[in-house]
Amino acid sequence: MATPPTKQSGFDIDLGNQCSATAYNWAKRTFQNRDGKAGELSRDLEGGFSNLMIFGEQRLGIGSDGIGTKVELAERTKIYHTLGFDLLAMVVDDLIASGFVPTSVSNILDVDVLDHDTVDQLMRGLHDAANFCQVAVTGGEIAELGSRIGGWGDEGMHFNWCSTAIGVLHPSLEKPISGRTVKVGDKILAIKSRGFRSNGFSAIRRSMQAKFGDNWHEQSDEQTGKSWGETLLSPSLICAPAIVKCLDAGVVPKGIAHITGGGLADNLRRVLKHSGLGALMNDLFAPHHSMTQLQEWGELSNEQAYLYWNMGHAMIAILDNDQIEKAQSVLSDTDYETKVIGHIIAEKSIHLHVPDSTDVLTLNY
Amino acid sequence: MATPPTKQSGFDIDLGNQCSATAYNWAKRTFQNRDGKAGELSRDLEGGFSNLMIFGEQRLGIGSDGIGTKVELAERTKIYHTLGFDLLAMVVDDLIASGFVPTSVSNILDVDVLDHDTVDQLMRGLHDAANFCQVAVTGGEIAELGSRIGGWGDEGMHFNWCSTAIGVLHPSLEKPISGRTVKVGDKILAIKSRGFRSNGFSAIRRSMQAKFGDNWHEQSDEQTGKSWGETLLSPSLICAPAIVKCLDAGVVPKGIAHITGGGLADNLRRVLKHSGLGALMNDLFAPHHSMTQLQEWGELSNEQAYLYWNMGHAMIAILDNDQIEKAQSVLSDTDYETKVIGHIIAEKSIHLHVPDSTDVLTLNY
Repeated sequence: MATPPTKQSGFDIDLGNQCSATAYNWAKRTFQNRDGKAGELSRDLEGGFSNLMIFGEQRLGIGSDGIGTKVELAERTKIYHTLGFDLLAMVVDDLIASGFVPTSVSNILDVDVLDHDTVDQLMRGLHDAANFCQVAVTGGEIAELGSRIGGWGDEGMHFNWCSTAIGVLHPSLEKPISGRTVKVGDKILAIKSRGFRSNGFSAIRRSMQAKFGDNWHEQSDEQTGKSWGETLLSPSLICAPAIVKCLDAGVVPKGIAHITGGGLADNLRRVLKHSGLGALMNDLFAPHHSMTQLQEWGELSNEQAYLYWNMGHAMIAILDNDQIEKAQSVLSDTDYETKVIGHIIAEKSIHLHVPDSTDVLTLNY
Repeated sequence: MATPPTKQSGFDIDLGNQCSATAYNWAKRTFQNRDGKAGELSRDLEGGFSNLMIFGEQRLGIGSDGIGTKVELAERTKIYHTLGFDLLAMVVDDLIASGFVPTSVSNILDVDVLDHDTVDQLMRGLHDAANFCQVAVTGGEIAELGSRIGGWGDEGMHFNWCSTAIGVLHPSLEKPISGRTVKVGDKILAIKSRGFRSNGFSAIRRSMQAKFGDNWHEQSDEQTGKSWGETLLSPSLICAPAIVKCLDAGVVPKGIAHITGGGLADNLRRVLKHSGLGALMNDLFAPHHSMTQLQEWGELSNEQAYLYWNMGHAMIAILDNDQIEKAQSVLSDTDYETKVIGHIIAEKSIHLHVPDSTDVLTLNY
């Protein structure tokens, strides 16, 4: 990982970053529209914007995301009621990573043609996921877009699904969690993932296609006794309730990385850039069997696998050494599995010790 | 309009309503997740939910929508910087129709492959529209979805674009504007539209295709001297600032209908159902030349044209008789063109007098 690949999952990351930067530059020039009014965007100490909207005494955050091409797994398996967990995980876990307790989500479902039963299953899953993380689904929109929407196979409803969530800054926080107060020696606590989340599905498809050809989802996964389609569809674990429980108990992470596209190193780097420090992660969770298997079938290097996929980690939190025990105690009566996977170092780079291997992946920045 | 067609623009409205109802039924079962907590959903006097989220002293609204298949006009004309006005009009004008002053918007752009220049133009337009209606673009997401996104022609970036907006209930309001207090004799004030908004584009395409074949957008529109593609792409007028200006001046509409899919009658019906009253609209704005022309080319009846398209009306507000003069005075130094187009009647039906015609369209309910 000395030089991370510039192409991820067939897409051009550099162009993606360039487009995101352009979008942000235009957006930034609208922020002053709310100066001194409801919805004012808060500036942090350095004069930058801190992702915080101020409504009177209320401090709110907002975030949007979708489940990308994971939808194809639902189309292949005809299982639709789990995607709601993926959709909410993407948006609410981004919010809690900044300390916003998610409260409300809106969703937009773009379809080619409507199928009532599929919509019913999707919305049931969204309901289940919303109840899991205690948010209200405040509304949404279903848009019939005909041939503007594509997908796998000729049958069934094809769709893309995205969501916007809002949340309130946890009352114990003065400002959003940013990573600014991270110091050398702080510990990195990981929440174990349940499998793939909503990222890296282009690489997943390439690996499966290379091994089994077109109908790869029907192949049997010997380890689980399910089809590989079902294994790969496994719903994302929503981590927000775990972090809320910690915050409620007075355990305040200094930085949190939601492990999405870019994997452990790149998502942690975004948190560490605010302190200028680095990290050594030398006791990682073992990757799920699906990940090691697909890494082998797709002939991916460890660098690639740890860039595309979460490799066992849904979220990581940086905590003061003396808060680790309390955090683990708070979460001990939940289903979340946690582990200290490393610590913060002075050197400005991230080192990953690949489990059951002598490989150490290093990201310098 | 005695029996409105059940198929609109080629889509099945009944199935659409059924899917929306199913989605709402699942969503409703998540509302209690916020009872007594930040983001609580307010119940109205009848025990129903009033589209209002409560955060401490703050009363917020949220809404999501997209620009549907109007995107095709941008793909045909390669003009991308006006769609931001359509996107914001859809979401902020829904919010203001309930009395929420829009403050913040998030957007999600789903693309097949990225093109930086196109993204730049789209985001510039979003910036222009956000400045027009004084909201902040708080963030967004650009998702590369490959073949899951389709569109017109083989070249360029194809995309679907949606947005979620939040707003604060105007301080002069005790609760959202709902139409409950509408009474017989109240006046209906309309804000004139600029042309088509983001609805009815399937019918538009059918009319143009029937008249000119595949490359209909290149045909010259003699009335404007532009191409028909440009005429049909004309950006939506965002009405929220007009209503905010009224509310700030103490002019409080009792009900507001944002004229979207379903046209004047169906959107007004949704507002009137809360009072059980009807309306006579006997002095409508004349439809834009593009609408009468496409109605002729597509051989649409008046019933169809007034169901699919806004026919000159972007938004209508129901006002007490003695507030009409003040409303028009407040808006007299703006670019908004308004007119009293009718009034509220006791009979539970809506009558539209088609301008320059003896046709009266009636919607009973």
